[in-house]
Amino acid sequence: MTMDRPFSHVNAEGELRMVDVSDKPPTRRRAEASCLVVTSADLAELPAREDGLGARHAARVAGVLAAKRTDELIPLCHSLALSDVDVRVTPVEGGLAVAATVTATQRTGVEMEALTACAVAALSLVQAIGDADPAAHVEALALDAKEGGRSGAWGRGVPGAP
Amino acid sequence: MTMDRPFSHVNAEGELRMVDVSDKPPTRRRAEASCLVVTSADLAELPAREDGLGARHAARVAGVLAAKRTDELIPLCHSLALSDVDVRVTPVEGGLAVAATVTATQRTGVEMEALTACAVAALSLVQAIGDADPAAHVEALALDAKEGGRSGAWGRGVPGAP
Amino acid sequence: MTMDRPFSHVNAEGELRMVDVSDKPPTRRRAEASCLVVTSADLAELPAREDGLGARHAARVAGVLAAKRTDELIPLCHSLALSDVDVRVTPVEGGLAVAATVTATQRTGVEMEALTACAVAALSLVQAIGDADPAAHVEALALDAKEGGRSGAWGRGVPGAP
Amino acid sequence: MTMDRPFSHVNAEGELRMVDVSDKPPTRRRAEASCLVVTSADLAELPAREDGLGARHAARVAGVLAAKRTDELIPLCHSLALSDVDVRVTPVEGGLAVAATVTATQRTGVEMEALTACAVAALSLVQAIGDADPAAHVEALALDAKEGGRSGAWGRGVPGAP
Amino acid sequence: MTMDRPFSHVNAEGELRMVDVSDKPPTRRRAEASCLVVTSADLAELPAREDGLGARHAARVAGVLAAKRTDELIPLCHSLALSDVDVRVTPVEGGLAVAATVTATQRTGVEMEALTACAVAALSLVQAIGDADPAAHVEALALDAKEGGRSGAWGRGVPGAP
Amino acid sequence: MTMDRPFSHVNAEGELRMVDVSDKPPTRRRAEASCLVVTSADLAELPAREDGLGARHAARVAGVLAAKRTDELIPLCHSLALSDVDVRVTPVEGGLAVAATVTATQRTGVEMEALTACAVAALSLVQAIGDADPAAHVEALALDAKEGGRSGAWGRGVPGAP
Repeated sequence: MTMDRPFSHVNAEGELRMVDVSDKPPTRRRAEASCLVVTSADLAELPAREDGLGARHAARVAGVLAAKRTDELIPLCHSLALSDVDVRVTPVEGGLAVAATVTATQRTGVEMEALTACAVAALSLVQAIGDADPAAHVEALALDAKEGGRSGAWGRGVPGAP
Repeated sequence: MTMDRPFSHVNAEGELRMVDVSDKPPTRRRAEASCLVVTSADLAELPAREDGLGARHAARVAGVLAAKRTDELIPLCHSLALSDVDVRVTPVEGGLAVAATVTATQRTGVEMEALTACAVAALSLVQAIGDADPAAHVEALALDAKEGGRSGAWGRGVPGAP
Repeated sequence: MTMDRPFSHVNAEGELRMVDVSDKPPTRRRAEASCLVVTSADLAELPAREDGLGARHAARVAGVLAAKRTDELIPLCHSLALSDVDVRVTPVEGGLAVAATVTATQRTGVEMEALTACAVAALSLVQAIGDADPAAHVEALALDAKEGGRSGAWGRGVPGAP
Repeated sequence: MTMDRPFSHVNAEGELRMVDVSDKPPTRRRAEASCLVVTSADLAELPAREDGLGARHAARVAGVLAAKRTDELIPLCHSLALSDVDVRVTPVEGGLAVAATVTATQRTGVEMEALTACAVAALSLVQAIGDADPAAHVEALALDAKEGGRSGAWGRGVPGAP
Repeated sequence: MTMDRPFSHVNAEGELRMVDVSDKPPTRRRAEASCLVVTSADLAELPAREDGLGARHAARVAGVLAAKRTDELIPLCHSLALSDVDVRVTPVEGGLAVAATVTATQRTGVEMEALTACAVAALSLVQAIGDADPAAHVEALALDAKEGGRSGAWGRGVPGAP
Repeated sequence: MTMDRPFSHVNAEGELRMVDVSDKPPTRRRAEASCLVVTSADLAELPAREDGLGARHAARVAGVLAAKRTDELIPLCHSLALSDVDVRVTPVEGGLAVAATVTATQRTGVEMEALTACAVAALSLVQAIGDADPAAHVEALALDAKEGGRSGAWGRGVPGAP
């Protein structure tokens, strides 16, 4: 991995700019991202409890809405009409797994949209459990895979690898 | 830590609701949060390079703006007039440390605002370096300390402890 | 009911303006609003069905978020920090009842916030059932009661009356 | 009308999701919606009065702006670039009629955009007359017609029919 | 006028930050700003023409809405609950004068809110006349006066002076 | 220049409406706009000072973000997916020059997006220097050139000409 071009959105003078995508054709893009809300063991029972449904659904809604507003949050993201956003919340050992899949037919990728959906969904869960567990936090907020565009498909590789 | 009241924003029927803060007096609140953008070693040179300033400043601006819009992103957060938001980006071993401090004189705390500032600033950095390092990701997005309000001061404890 | 002052937000020249609330003290305000999503009878079974929970929760979240952004939607509404927003969706004869209660300690009332919460929650339900029932629509979107402020408490009167 | 698939935006597990429109071609879509602001008879004189113009124009502007932000309000709506939004306010027996027509060349319909424009324009009028008539409310917020897309044209049918 | 402290929102390291206003008491603030939309002489007839009312009202509504969202546009502005926003559009020699007055009881001033209201109202007028006069532009977007706060009242001085 | 059709976004009744662009093909559009932040001479040293970098970068970020939200600010602007936004801040005799270039492949032009980027970037600079120079203001906020679309290329003409 070379760092000759460390910041793709910065020009030669170190000034910020969007990347001009005018000349790229719209193609189908897909990105998957995920993260983990780390909290106490009791939360593993979440899906079996009626009172957990509200918080889980709210996190999913918050994630979907945030994906659609990524361009308002991340300064140099393009405004993209997303074809599909799916956010999932699943209890796992040590907390709650959050995953998002975003699809669009656009001139640029949807990686940041998937990451933003995960981040906001995870923070919604952190808020819901914050009174009971102020140490709840988010780990491993990362892109898992992307497809489409000039650079082609990319995956994080074998499970557990960075 | 007890989980008898796992979701503070959910009523007895498991339905979502904001927490009514009408009866709480406005007091000074402060929260600190942080996270780490994990990337390749070359980025440790960021602050010494002219072309890194744009991305670092953009991340700070994105974090400040996001803190002010936390109520639009996290469904059950109250709209809070923040007195101060400060976001810092610092190169560290293994990547870039992001930290945010938020202050307000309000009826409820500003923990989520500090976490949101960190998350969005970190994702702005992830975008800036995404072409060079698609494996860049965010770790340890967590509340570090809070002050003010009925529950009083809280800290994550000894430095480095989760 | 007199119409001598038909538009409280319009000056003598018929030009729009916000109502200056600088001289009013902040007091506790509360407003209740409701509406009905009219749809086919089958939807009365909603709460007993697992697949209805998502749509009901999403509508509640959408209503809460919209209440907090009323000032961005209704041009002459003041920006108000709401203490509490609660949105409820209940199956009734002929469809789904939506109700919202909003509380705040402010210089002006929260009637529009409660109405906006109901409208957006109801439209979220209309969207969810739109493919199955394009004739689904919203009736009786109205303020039911308000408390606080100079004009005091007001209610729509006897139950069932318009 | 069958309810076998009551919620088009909910998957088999009852979890929320957007409908993936990636495989649909963009086609010209058009939707008409309307509602009625019910208020006292005096308002029938609205258009003949100079001081009514401001409120009417503000409602139209509010409706147009809201249509463009439907995706931020209704969780599972796609972000759509609208070609045209027209909102009309007309005095009628018993109040003020609000109508909206929305056009776009997109992969999905603009029904929710037309409904949202009507709802927000109507609530703007309710606010303007709220001091004089707190009982003012909204009735019959409904889709009237839609064109375009796989399901083709649909209309509410004979005038007055639900 | 000294420039020893040229950027009030930048710390000693030249990094951006909001100004902490926690220790300031809320006091009544007022700001007036104005600008001029320069266009051809024919527009001086605007208020006498029926077809000009729509554009003038739309500009006023756009200005009021923008004032309320100043904190989303200007990175280091605080979120302020405004008590009153009034935007005026008046035909003058050489074009259309736009003026805004903003009032609030807050810990910081409302200068930026008044300037933002003027800028957005003026650009709305520029858009409306853009097809007929693409050379239409905005001059003299400036603060005219402010009251309240530690620094006290300030005015641009004798009429006509820059 | 004729004023027979002074307001392109107003129908024959003087009522506001968007311009229907459904029948126009998407073509590449480009617009350049600029303005001047007038302030004291000391600011000419801005780029040579470390403590000026933050304010300049913040203004650029604010301008880029604002361009993407033009449709939320200017009532009758269409929502446009922009391909590229570049905002520049340069010290000049008498203050700071702000320039913006916006590109998109759309059914309508991006003039308003370029103007909005300049206006918000300039106001961000005005805020940053407001404590030191409350008389700082914005002049000559204007479209400089546009390309693409039915009406073809347009430029303000010889340098310095209005």
